[in-house]
Amino acid sequence: MSGSRAPGRTVAENAQLALLLEVTGTPKPGNVDREHDYPDLRFEHFVTGAVGALEGFRTAAAGEPVGAAFERAIAGMAEQRGGNTQFGAALLLCPLVAAMARAPPGGNGEDVRDGGNDRNDRELTPAGVAAVVEAATVADAADFYRAFEYVDVAVDDPPTGMEALDVRRGEAAIPELEARGLTLAGVMERSADVDGVAREWVGGFERSFRAAERIAALDGPVPERTARAFLEALADEPDTFVRTQHDAATAREATERARAALDGDVDPDELADEFVDRGINPGTTADVIAAGLFIALERGLSV
Amino acid sequence: MSGSRAPGRTVAENAQLALLLEVTGTPKPGNVDREHDYPDLRFEHFVTGAVGALEGFRTAAAGEPVGAAFERAIAGMAEQRGGNTQFGAALLLCPLVAAMARAPPGGNGEDVRDGGNDRNDRELTPAGVAAVVEAATVADAADFYRAFEYVDVAVDDPPTGMEALDVRRGEAAIPELEARGLTLAGVMERSADVDGVAREWVGGFERSFRAAERIAALDGPVPERTARAFLEALADEPDTFVRTQHDAATAREATERARAALDGDVDPDELADEFVDRGINPGTTADVIAAGLFIALERGLSV
Repeated sequence: MSGSRAPGRTVAENAQLALLLEVTGTPKPGNVDREHDYPDLRFEHFVTGAVGALEGFRTAAAGEPVGAAFERAIAGMAEQRGGNTQFGAALLLCPLVAAMARAPPGGNGEDVRDGGNDRNDRELTPAGVAAVVEAATVADAADFYRAFEYVDVAVDDPPTGMEALDVRRGEAAIPELEARGLTLAGVMERSADVDGVAREWVGGFERSFRAAERIAALDGPVPERTARAFLEALADEPDTFVRTQHDAATAREATERARAALDGDVDPDELADEFVDRGINPGTTADVIAAGLFIALERGLSV
Repeated sequence: MSGSRAPGRTVAENAQLALLLEVTGTPKPGNVDREHDYPDLRFEHFVTGAVGALEGFRTAAAGEPVGAAFERAIAGMAEQRGGNTQFGAALLLCPLVAAMARAPPGGNGEDVRDGGNDRNDRELTPAGVAAVVEAATVADAADFYRAFEYVDVAVDDPPTGMEALDVRRGEAAIPELEARGLTLAGVMERSADVDGVAREWVGGFERSFRAAERIAALDGPVPERTARAFLEALADEPDTFVRTQHDAATAREATERARAALDGDVDPDELADEFVDRGINPGTTADVIAAGLFIALERGLSV
């Protein structure tokens, strides 16, 4: 090795890396990871999706609106045959990337490179990302709906009176959105009780920052820390994606089994095989871990 | 899914994806892959290296000199703790990316996006990449030497009279390079007999294009095709990296064992474990497969 100065990764590249490291960490029971596939949704689909998502993160890092950045991330991510890979993770990463782009003393619209993790003292904080959420507009909400045109995402039926705003309607819902003057934060508020990603958006990304702290505090290779942080997050709170795909009882059971794995009463590898067999896929927890990985990378985690 | 037009991947993004798919294909006996690590060189190092390499590929796709693009790819790739991950693969990918950038009717210096794999009829051909090789200058050779400042690469001792041009000297060798007026193709010619990557450079990327054809012709998920194409390439020709790290007999043995695996006389998974245990790492063959994946992706392979 030499003293040649490494160019460092940009903020956008760290977001891409967070997607890749999330899916690399194993075992993350029930999720696709380095050692686990579903028959039609496999590791290579995630890898390919992460390649395609980068341009969206670059858009966010350049200071473009967060909704447009997200739509671009999903359009690129969908460029593979597996279907939805890391939709929720991208939905957390875009405002986090945008927050880094807007953090003082920056704001010049460039995707800053990190040569030695100083980032000119820019810091990624809950307040910074909360400001991005607050600044999001109706146009951002429209772009969020447009993202659903590229991929099928499993979501709950909307509550009574909200049918016109069902995200599965995609672009068709935009006139209603505009009529109600709903911002992207407004959209997230309406599903925060059933969707853990939306809850992060309206709750200062609390679990994402907590995951980042755990990943930074743990020892060992990053994929092992990732797997551990995933189990802890799942043990801590039922996964809303499991609740959507199955029911509340299954989501509670997954959380109890994760707790048992942490306590040493269940082998996490066996749990992974069992969850994949049963189609129990705690994807929201994985999304939070991807966001945590990004925050940790921005704060200096090295791989 | 909807009719929204996907943005497609750029040429540079396909090069990044080729690195990621190469390391995802398993088993590739003796190489780090999705299911195999070496103690200090692990899958996450490759993933992180691929994230860092993209900017170099973007440089090549923008029509910048191939040496500068390669140095940038390696500087970014080295941004992880594992050391050398895919140096040889990047050395094959940079001229291939440059060839796409220069293919008629393009030449406008943009990294073209593929919306439906038409690429405005641009085609990646052996003649196109040979033209890039021929056009490479002494300055490209100097940048190639600079790339060695970022990472330790296992290479043979130089032949008698070539000590001053030992690549391990990095930048220190540049004055000698300039005194001799050696282009990058000239450097490659001098090591083509001991290094399979250099042989591709001076031989029209023959094995890379053959690998692309195999990957396109095989059935099944891309990582499985990748693993099969790797075994075939290794069975076809002893790996020069194994010869460098061990000796000619070990390289021949690895080729014979790969042939036995293809014939069904050896379990490829067991061979993978054995090769990793013995430190037999057919890295040059993996480099050729990465190049083949890129060519196949440019020709429309979907994942």
